[in-house]
Amino acid sequence: MNLIDAEELARTRDAQDVLAPMRQKFDIPLDVIYFDGNSLGPLTLRSREVLHHTIEFEWRERLIRSWNEDWLAMPTRVGNMIAPIIGAAQDTVISCDNTSINLHKALMAAVALRPGRTEIVIDINNFPTDIYIAQSVADQHGMTLVAVPAEEITGAISERTAVVTATHVDYRSAQILDAQAITTAAHQYGALMVWDLAHTAGAVPFDASALDIDFAVGCGYKYLNGGPGAPAFIYVAPRLLAESGQPLQGWWAHAAPFDFELGFRPAPGISRFLTGTATVLSMKSLEAALEIFSGVSMVDIRAKSLSLTGLFVDLFDVHLAPRGFVLASPRHPESRGSHVALGFAGGKALVERLSAQGVIADFRPPELMRFGFAPLYNSHKDVVELVQHLLGP
Amino acid sequence: MNLIDAEELARTRDAQDVLAPMRQKFDIPLDVIYFDGNSLGPLTLRSREVLHHTIEFEWRERLIRSWNEDWLAMPTRVGNMIAPIIGAAQDTVISCDNTSINLHKALMAAVALRPGRTEIVIDINNFPTDIYIAQSVADQHGMTLVAVPAEEITGAISERTAVVTATHVDYRSAQILDAQAITTAAHQYGALMVWDLAHTAGAVPFDASALDIDFAVGCGYKYLNGGPGAPAFIYVAPRLLAESGQPLQGWWAHAAPFDFELGFRPAPGISRFLTGTATVLSMKSLEAALEIFSGVSMVDIRAKSLSLTGLFVDLFDVHLAPRGFVLASPRHPESRGSHVALGFAGGKALVERLSAQGVIADFRPPELMRFGFAPLYNSHKDVVELVQHLLGP
Repeated sequence: MNLIDAEELARTRDAQDVLAPMRQKFDIPLDVIYFDGNSLGPLTLRSREVLHHTIEFEWRERLIRSWNEDWLAMPTRVGNMIAPIIGAAQDTVISCDNTSINLHKALMAAVALRPGRTEIVIDINNFPTDIYIAQSVADQHGMTLVAVPAEEITGAISERTAVVTATHVDYRSAQILDAQAITTAAHQYGALMVWDLAHTAGAVPFDASALDIDFAVGCGYKYLNGGPGAPAFIYVAPRLLAESGQPLQGWWAHAAPFDFELGFRPAPGISRFLTGTATVLSMKSLEAALEIFSGVSMVDIRAKSLSLTGLFVDLFDVHLAPRGFVLASPRHPESRGSHVALGFAGGKALVERLSAQGVIADFRPPELMRFGFAPLYNSHKDVVELVQHLLGP
Repeated sequence: MNLIDAEELARTRDAQDVLAPMRQKFDIPLDVIYFDGNSLGPLTLRSREVLHHTIEFEWRERLIRSWNEDWLAMPTRVGNMIAPIIGAAQDTVISCDNTSINLHKALMAAVALRPGRTEIVIDINNFPTDIYIAQSVADQHGMTLVAVPAEEITGAISERTAVVTATHVDYRSAQILDAQAITTAAHQYGALMVWDLAHTAGAVPFDASALDIDFAVGCGYKYLNGGPGAPAFIYVAPRLLAESGQPLQGWWAHAAPFDFELGFRPAPGISRFLTGTATVLSMKSLEAALEIFSGVSMVDIRAKSLSLTGLFVDLFDVHLAPRGFVLASPRHPESRGSHVALGFAGGKALVERLSAQGVIADFRPPELMRFGFAPLYNSHKDVVELVQHLLGP
């Protein structure tokens, strides 16, 4: 397909795109084409509006009274907005802290539920923070961290395994792991399963309830568009909640935080996975951005994601492969998340050159360019323009 | 002193107040008199301005590029702004997470530095989250949490003690603990000392270096005015840094976070106490508010704090004690932080009535009213008006 035909195809698909109106909910500069929503989602009009209200009314005017009037309930409220996006029931997800901290909580809770077991199994290609956190939990318990490639995870699980953790969509390749197979394998050996949904939530459908997973964590600032450093989230299966605890049991995890009791009594619900005071400004921005998801279906998001990444892969074959770019993401659509990675020897310099032109992607060492295609604001036209920019002036 | 004389005295003291101009840096509603800066500091003009810039320029326009251009260095920058406020050297304080999480890190690091010791000593009147977190650390290690009143702490320390933790200014009474005596007692037995500076930082002088303390944690949203849920901070004595680790060792604690190494290597400096991604919006607001402290001295802040609380105690004696109010804060100025607590049987209802009139204080069960006097924006006139409101219509 030549680029003239691609432009025509893009126009047709964009005209038929049921999600196209969502683009108007974002404020992306006119001179920017953005392909880094897998790293930091752009500003939404609602986040701007809500932050203004939070600063001027809730903080400035209502001051301390806003805790009771609004803020105390926010982690629960935001968790319940995230729940349907990852296929979780109400009151099983809560927003708090960052992903590293939430993974620590999930792994510590899981290990405590499987006393006597000696191994934690992890995807060796996991985002490094997951490996560092899992290593720390293993070290604290004198356990062994078994780090293997994704395709070897099921084979690495045994009756020694306390918990298995992996990221559903690989942060480099965007490969979607088989959540059903890995969760089932973990459960067959009585191990617990913790999924990291950082590159899943808001871009790739996930069904925490149907998969019967045990824990999940994920990120608020990628496809959920919560803003830089937006709080993360944690999911705990309701069947585990009553017996689960976590070591960062600050006052917000208490059954009655404002009774100031001397002894810790965990909250009956998911809020036992909170720690201390929520970062209000950052969480408000996330809450506002999440409103967009109440009006869209994850089926439509997935369909558009595949249409965008599929078009990019088609154009890659014709135009980029001959220039020395290498596809580093799955070719099969079913296995591909919402970004596409290309290996390229001069990738770092190229990403920097594109950025100077307002075409923003990112780069992961040693030579991986990542292009995130966010169904809520990227168009097929964006995809064609990206290829044109990659081909250079 | 009758209230007419008190008004005259307040006018005189306010006219001589070297910190009076600082009030113009805050945007407190005209119909509000605010005495809850010990719980949530009010909005500063700089926080509003910087948040606008962060939203509109750094996030909207620069997008992902802002991480390298500004945000990555923020926890270190903000830590270095807090350092002089607590008498710490540069690069020994870092801003991150919340106080509960930072206390967990400090206690876990301290316990790891004192293997074989079996007790953690804590002030039983500590803010409950500190007790819950310390209990969790003790439980994880099979240690005993020894919780005693402040005056018994030094006597409770022994060669079994791994770490002692207390809050420098009591959250209820505002009593200032003897940081020198307690730290020295801990060190005499080879134990480590962790101070919680939540009600100290920005209101009461503290000298982390001269006291030779080991760890400190504290809060960004009280007297530092960082905004609701602003990030907290952690201090680690430079002599301990190289041998200290903490279990939440996410990628931001790594020596080279963006090299994505498989194994964890702690950062050489204080950033080894970071976890994962910082909450940018919330931390930006804190950074902006901290600018105020670069222009003021903690000596002046302390002097004004004592002048405000002293005036309130004087007026309490004449006007409030006869009405059944009970002073629940130290009478001796040296022992008193920057708020004054009054016991009063109808305290909860009274705080609510005052709040409806725009006179904002807070309440802690069972019957404690707390009045925070923040030297940067409260005046002596505020103090007299508070007493007038407490006396009722």
